[in-house]
Amino acid sequence: MIVTVEAATRVAADLLESAGVPKDAALLQADLLVVAQAKGVPSHGLLRLPRLLRRIGNGVASATARGEHHWLTPAHLSVDGCQGLGPVVAMSALDAAEPAARRFGIALVSIARTNHLGMLSWYTEQLAKRGLVTIAATTSEALVHAHHGTNAVIGTNPISIAVPADQPVVLDMATSEVSMGKVHDYAARGEPLEEGWALDSSGRPTTDAVAASSGALAPLGPKGYALGVTLGALVAHLTPSATGTAVRGTLDDTESANKGDVFIVVDAAPATPVDAYLDEVRGSRPADPGVPISIPGERSSDRRRAAERDGLEVDDALWNELNDWPRTPQPHL
Amino acid sequence: MIVTVEAATRVAADLLESAGVPKDAALLQADLLVVAQAKGVPSHGLLRLPRLLRRIGNGVASATARGEHHWLTPAHLSVDGCQGLGPVVAMSALDAAEPAARRFGIALVSIARTNHLGMLSWYTEQLAKRGLVTIAATTSEALVHAHHGTNAVIGTNPISIAVPADQPVVLDMATSEVSMGKVHDYAARGEPLEEGWALDSSGRPTTDAVAASSGALAPLGPKGYALGVTLGALVAHLTPSATGTAVRGTLDDTESANKGDVFIVVDAAPATPVDAYLDEVRGSRPADPGVPISIPGERSSDRRRAAERDGLEVDDALWNELNDWPRTPQPHL
Repeated sequence: MIVTVEAATRVAADLLESAGVPKDAALLQADLLVVAQAKGVPSHGLLRLPRLLRRIGNGVASATARGEHHWLTPAHLSVDGCQGLGPVVAMSALDAAEPAARRFGIALVSIARTNHLGMLSWYTEQLAKRGLVTIAATTSEALVHAHHGTNAVIGTNPISIAVPADQPVVLDMATSEVSMGKVHDYAARGEPLEEGWALDSSGRPTTDAVAASSGALAPLGPKGYALGVTLGALVAHLTPSATGTAVRGTLDDTESANKGDVFIVVDAAPATPVDAYLDEVRGSRPADPGVPISIPGERSSDRRRAAERDGLEVDDALWNELNDWPRTPQPHL
Repeated sequence: MIVTVEAATRVAADLLESAGVPKDAALLQADLLVVAQAKGVPSHGLLRLPRLLRRIGNGVASATARGEHHWLTPAHLSVDGCQGLGPVVAMSALDAAEPAARRFGIALVSIARTNHLGMLSWYTEQLAKRGLVTIAATTSEALVHAHHGTNAVIGTNPISIAVPADQPVVLDMATSEVSMGKVHDYAARGEPLEEGWALDSSGRPTTDAVAASSGALAPLGPKGYALGVTLGALVAHLTPSATGTAVRGTLDDTESANKGDVFIVVDAAPATPVDAYLDEVRGSRPADPGVPISIPGERSSDRRRAAERDGLEVDDALWNELNDWPRTPQPHL
């Protein structure tokens, strides 16, 4: 089904408001989900809304919390998210940290006890558009096996880095070979996975998406494993959070969120013309003249513009579910 | 040939001193090279010393510069390396930035115009042992092609992240599939490369190491490309440096070093026991009970300990070249 970005945002924001989320916060959360959908990351899109509404109904996500701010040092803001919505707590923290980044040159934001941040590039891209270099990392439920391991013990531990430019460079990558959202997607369509993506619950390689759902995702090779576990250690060191198989609260309806999130924000005048560098990369010799060389973030921005022009593709069943959602707060379990 | 770590360090330091490098600086540069050799990264080991000595002799590397420090903001130290030796300029900058990191919680060091930093984990591991979370990134000569590209336009752009722990977690990875050092090594031994590692100068896939030397290395898949070009943009934004194919000075004997280096240093009390997380990862179910699951940095630290105990493997020709090196400053070209 094709719906306009405006309609999708309105439906999402209305549902959040009817669950008790203040209007500005509801719009922020709705925008995060719709932008992910528009950028071609449906696993971080509207699909996440029913879960969030159930979490609010079940009392494990707060409709109103914006986080408690504690400055540990002049440039390190530690935030207790108080189980608030991810984008509401994180954008509030980033707004508070921006003056520190401008004054000291760099600031650190560490967040615990907040709901799913969703697509990290939503945050880093906004800050890059304000002229700030931003690095974001977050932990997540154990879904990925170690290099030489066979059971899920590491999150998909994504990293996003955005750098100001005419059109900011926006990296956003998980450290697993593929996302669990993709595996679920293949399972729903009854399609086999590619070899090397996942193991089943007994640790054997599988292309059966259903078997992989209860197994483990492959890390992005030895280097992806190393990056993922290091980011996990970094987030653990900087936020009071659960680690490894103890992480809960972004893939279930009933448990408090206990992962951690970290942002580093840098304010510095551009020392070198980044756009000239990007132009040289874009202009390098292509393997196929029909396939352009793109800069990180470019293709998803193109998809977003297309969705804003032509409408957003939303799964029929999901769209019906959202439109039929009872417009009152959900009862506690 | 097997030589002791002490002998290797003494030979390297003596040669640097005879080229005019002050004793403390010579020991620092020698230690960096010998530690890389001991950790099993000979491409960043003693192999680099003849080039450094020639660069000093040719006047494109300064034997004595330690860098000029400019605090752009209270927590951002910008350094003009004045063509000094990489570890001398960078450790001096990191020592100066440490009090800022302790006071503000986080500090940024951006360095331009300094010689090859070498193995980044040498820096980040030392800072992690002082209790500081450290992120390092550096650019380098264009050796890697873009995703969908066929000519070298991006550096191998490594990233290192170290996190304090009983034994610190130390990530150190290039964003290319393999290093050019490895390709040169295969070329020297007349061995074919693995498929997918490199293109020849006309942009065709090759397993011929000699052809690859004048071609381009493959990025570590689409995500490695994205990470590499983003780190390149980040370093360019933060340091007055050359980008893309204009980078010079770490692979030649005659040109000033114009790449950039960036460090982020964080001082924060550990919020979560990182060691418990690492133990869970180490203790996860192995694919092969005979192959232990290791944490980033662990195997190279094991290799270093073994080298300190049993001696260091150094290429015969290189060791003879170093021992026969004329003990006077090299003439200018």
